[in-house]
Amino acid sequence: MADRLRAGVIGLGSMGLGMATSLIRGGFDTLGCDINAEALERLAAKGGQPVASPAEMGGRVDIVFLVVVNAAQMRDVLLGANGLASTLSTGSIVVGCATAAPDDVIALAAELAEKGIDYLDIPISGGSVKSAAGELTLMASGPSEVFERAQPALDAIAATIFRLGEAPGQGSQVKLVNQLLAGVHIAAAAEAMAYGIKSGCDPQTLYDVITKSAGNSWMFENRVPHIIDGDYTPRSAVDIFVKDLGLVHDTARAERFPLPMTAQALTMFSQASSMGHGREDDAGVVRIFPGIDLPTQAAND
Amino acid sequence: MADRLRAGVIGLGSMGLGMATSLIRGGFDTLGCDINAEALERLAAKGGQPVASPAEMGGRVDIVFLVVVNAAQMRDVLLGANGLASTLSTGSIVVGCATAAPDDVIALAAELAEKGIDYLDIPISGGSVKSAAGELTLMASGPSEVFERAQPALDAIAATIFRLGEAPGQGSQVKLVNQLLAGVHIAAAAEAMAYGIKSGCDPQTLYDVITKSAGNSWMFENRVPHIIDGDYTPRSAVDIFVKDLGLVHDTARAERFPLPMTAQALTMFSQASSMGHGREDDAGVVRIFPGIDLPTQAAND
Repeated sequence: MADRLRAGVIGLGSMGLGMATSLIRGGFDTLGCDINAEALERLAAKGGQPVASPAEMGGRVDIVFLVVVNAAQMRDVLLGANGLASTLSTGSIVVGCATAAPDDVIALAAELAEKGIDYLDIPISGGSVKSAAGELTLMASGPSEVFERAQPALDAIAATIFRLGEAPGQGSQVKLVNQLLAGVHIAAAAEAMAYGIKSGCDPQTLYDVITKSAGNSWMFENRVPHIIDGDYTPRSAVDIFVKDLGLVHDTARAERFPLPMTAQALTMFSQASSMGHGREDDAGVVRIFPGIDLPTQAAND
Repeated sequence: MADRLRAGVIGLGSMGLGMATSLIRGGFDTLGCDINAEALERLAAKGGQPVASPAEMGGRVDIVFLVVVNAAQMRDVLLGANGLASTLSTGSIVVGCATAAPDDVIALAAELAEKGIDYLDIPISGGSVKSAAGELTLMASGPSEVFERAQPALDAIAATIFRLGEAPGQGSQVKLVNQLLAGVHIAAAAEAMAYGIKSGCDPQTLYDVITKSAGNSWMFENRVPHIIDGDYTPRSAVDIFVKDLGLVHDTARAERFPLPMTAQALTMFSQASSMGHGREDDAGVVRIFPGIDLPTQAAND
């Protein structure tokens, strides 16, 4: 048997920790790094090896997943002080999983290429439950030769892998289209529930009918239970969609391309954040609607 | 065996003709009425009996489905010149299937009650294919006693029946929530495809990825193939959503309740209609986005 493959995950939030768990289950020696000490403890409890900085990880892994929030954090982790790129071996693979603007991803890949480091542009979709189960959806672009070397690690974390071309940026672009829809659909689900409640409909009945009708969406089905339960514990936060819809909006604005639904949904998430709900679950965008009695956790107990 | 039940359908568009077909298949003597002579010929070809006016139908049926466009048309069919109510027997049942404001439905039911005619508020969902298959979703409200008498006819047209209360208006209100989501999701699907195409994504690839991801919706899955095929033959037209989102918008405005996503989607459908696309398929709302090369039918041939 060959040496055990060595994988790293930087960013051990709900998505990154789930991916690390899947890699461990898949037989990888798995290192992890996060600025949050509790996240490192959770990794150790799953059988992973915490490290103190990206630079400390670089020499000890063949492939590293960057599961951070945006392109700026990916750049900092790679090229900043104590960055990965200072210690990664030639031919090692960086997998960028953050939702990012295609142009930023293209630039990052080019800088790493100068150092002999390979880059795969692989944003992820599926949420924390699928992440922990090794059943993510990957929107992957990058050179086939690099992809093939990465495949065992990708198979450990994913149920579905879309190959979207040879060039970095193509995966990120498709992810942005997905985020446009995801954000708009959460805002629409919140608006529909607010309108229904205002009109005297029972929230659970609305859920039962809509999820069997043409008004359904993946997000309606997934997020409306949070509204019905009055539970805004963040699985994914309002501010994530302020960020992601902002990114979609900015890439389109650079081309002077109009995105009316995106702009409206972004305004709604921004309003929720400004009201103090930025770190609550994204279904909490429903709290922007005034004059309705939303279900509360107390009422459900 | 009891006498054959006698049913009528007024409005023989794609939904009404499908329902009449399902009633015939279910063993009902089925009468139909429409201002379009071709629609009457299609009914006769299916084994139904065309009649010349609602009044002519009234004395010959036990239950009548109104499959017209809005509350004003339902009112006209019932109470206008040669209206149904002038000939319907006491205890016969009118089933209102149009998407309508709850207050209009409540008023109509009350006027019919004075004449001894029973009313069920049962908007429908599912599209023309499910209509012809007898597999519609019904959002039904009305008195249980009336509902039970109507049940054999409802079973002939529906796969799923939601009982939403004893009072007329409750079915219509839930239908409006569904239409809010349906319209917003079509507008969002169009915007996402326009943005993706502008950004260089392949339309079919976008469809394949999104339908397996968190950005999916029933409408995305159903309508985006029309965009990919460049085929705007109307299954349901742009102007239907100008009407339905307008109805949602108006009911909320009466309560001074804000619906930002609805308002934006309504603007987009109105824009498409003003550009001359009102009678095209509702996926044609994508044509409002300038500066992109949409797929064309010619390219697909």
